[in-house]
Amino acid sequence: MTLVLGGARSGKSSYAEGLVEAQAGPWLYVATAQAWDDEMRVRIAEHRARRAAPWKTIDAPRDLPGAIRGAEPGRPVLVDCLTLWLTNAMLDDGADLAAETGALLAACADAAGPLVLVSNEVGFGIVPENALARRFRDEAGRLHQRLGALADRVVLVVAGLPMTLKGDHP
Amino acid sequence: MTLVLGGARSGKSSYAEGLVEAQAGPWLYVATAQAWDDEMRVRIAEHRARRAAPWKTIDAPRDLPGAIRGAEPGRPVLVDCLTLWLTNAMLDDGADLAAETGALLAACADAAGPLVLVSNEVGFGIVPENALARRFRDEAGRLHQRLGALADRVVLVVAGLPMTLKGDHP
Amino acid sequence: MTLVLGGARSGKSSYAEGLVEAQAGPWLYVATAQAWDDEMRVRIAEHRARRAAPWKTIDAPRDLPGAIRGAEPGRPVLVDCLTLWLTNAMLDDGADLAAETGALLAACADAAGPLVLVSNEVGFGIVPENALARRFRDEAGRLHQRLGALADRVVLVVAGLPMTLKGDHP
Repeated sequence: MTLVLGGARSGKSSYAEGLVEAQAGPWLYVATAQAWDDEMRVRIAEHRARRAAPWKTIDAPRDLPGAIRGAEPGRPVLVDCLTLWLTNAMLDDGADLAAETGALLAACADAAGPLVLVSNEVGFGIVPENALARRFRDEAGRLHQRLGALADRVVLVVAGLPMTLKGDHP
Repeated sequence: MTLVLGGARSGKSSYAEGLVEAQAGPWLYVATAQAWDDEMRVRIAEHRARRAAPWKTIDAPRDLPGAIRGAEPGRPVLVDCLTLWLTNAMLDDGADLAAETGALLAACADAAGPLVLVSNEVGFGIVPENALARRFRDEAGRLHQRLGALADRVVLVVAGLPMTLKGDHP
Repeated sequence: MTLVLGGARSGKSSYAEGLVEAQAGPWLYVATAQAWDDEMRVRIAEHRARRAAPWKTIDAPRDLPGAIRGAEPGRPVLVDCLTLWLTNAMLDDGADLAAETGALLAACADAAGPLVLVSNEVGFGIVPENALARRFRDEAGRLHQRLGALADRVVLVVAGLPMTLKGDHP
């Protein structure tokens, strides 16, 4: 299990795709983007079309633990990205966030095949004035700590280049 | 002297506590949080209760140099965190910030025992629209540079994991 | 070619100046700050006065590729900073940003002498509420990725201390 962190447009997704594509395919792409409007719907469709076989794409804007558990055993899985999944969960008033993150960590721990998780590092700025943004930043930080403890490798991507925080250099 | 930098909820405080607890106790915890309201007062009391002996906790929301100088010689000291101390100083209209940061640097340089300082890295976001936030970001960056030059070890914590910027890996 | 990234007041400019000053002079300083008002005009003049011979300073708030190409062959060049150049280009309604960044990359690739580029890493915060800030963050991230791929060395400066992302430690 590898956790790939990075800033906005840092190249973290491309780096993570490369990690998965270095494994024997077919590969499973778990997309967490939610189509809130038509613009987003078009972007998601384009993203999906871009990823050619042997990529298979499934959408899991809410039930990410289920998507990870549902992958065929041994199949390399890329989750892109945890940030959107966490956003979707936080915007869902009925969600039990503690239970959902617990289920995610358990699914990651049980994953049989290679699992690469992409997420935005968002905690290096000034404290946001917006209360939801502050809460999101705290939740993302806590999730990253727990996944960081669990992962075999943790990488921070800056300007398209990986810095290894944990595990072997690739 | 070790400077531990990290983002929000990055695990920097836990990492810093571990550094201090690896030394022979008793340990001194210098808390810089200021109780602006009842909610904060409760949080500070809870934090203090959580830290069991051999931790001793003192509050130093304003006179941090004095608290560092007042530690018993040789006792390991943890300051958590510089960000709150700098905020308190900047919100105090009568404060001479240059003199106070100078006094802090001198107290750190004179510290006889192990000293671990925790601070938030806040400079990796977009320029804040709020003028006070911009000034805070500048002051924090300057303080980190000066402490970074003085420290024996500087560590950046991401997802609970340390990256060594200066000095030996632990 | 070296790309020096860092947060606000991280010491990235001083670090970059040190890299250039380790080379045989004279050195060319390419300043990208635009004088939007008198305050800025004074600051730019002070900056220029501070940099003594053998530094030569030229201003290139818009035509940065031309300034890099115009340097005498073999002369060490410091560009400080890409962030301001990108801001100037984005605030210029008539600008073709894709063409300009393409021209910048080509000029960097063709540079005969040592070239050090300074830029702010701005992608590690919460998604900005301001649309222009979001767009800037995306453009800066993409530019850093492309320059990161091209550069021989990429360094991230935190608290005045360099972390090497690519190439040899200095």
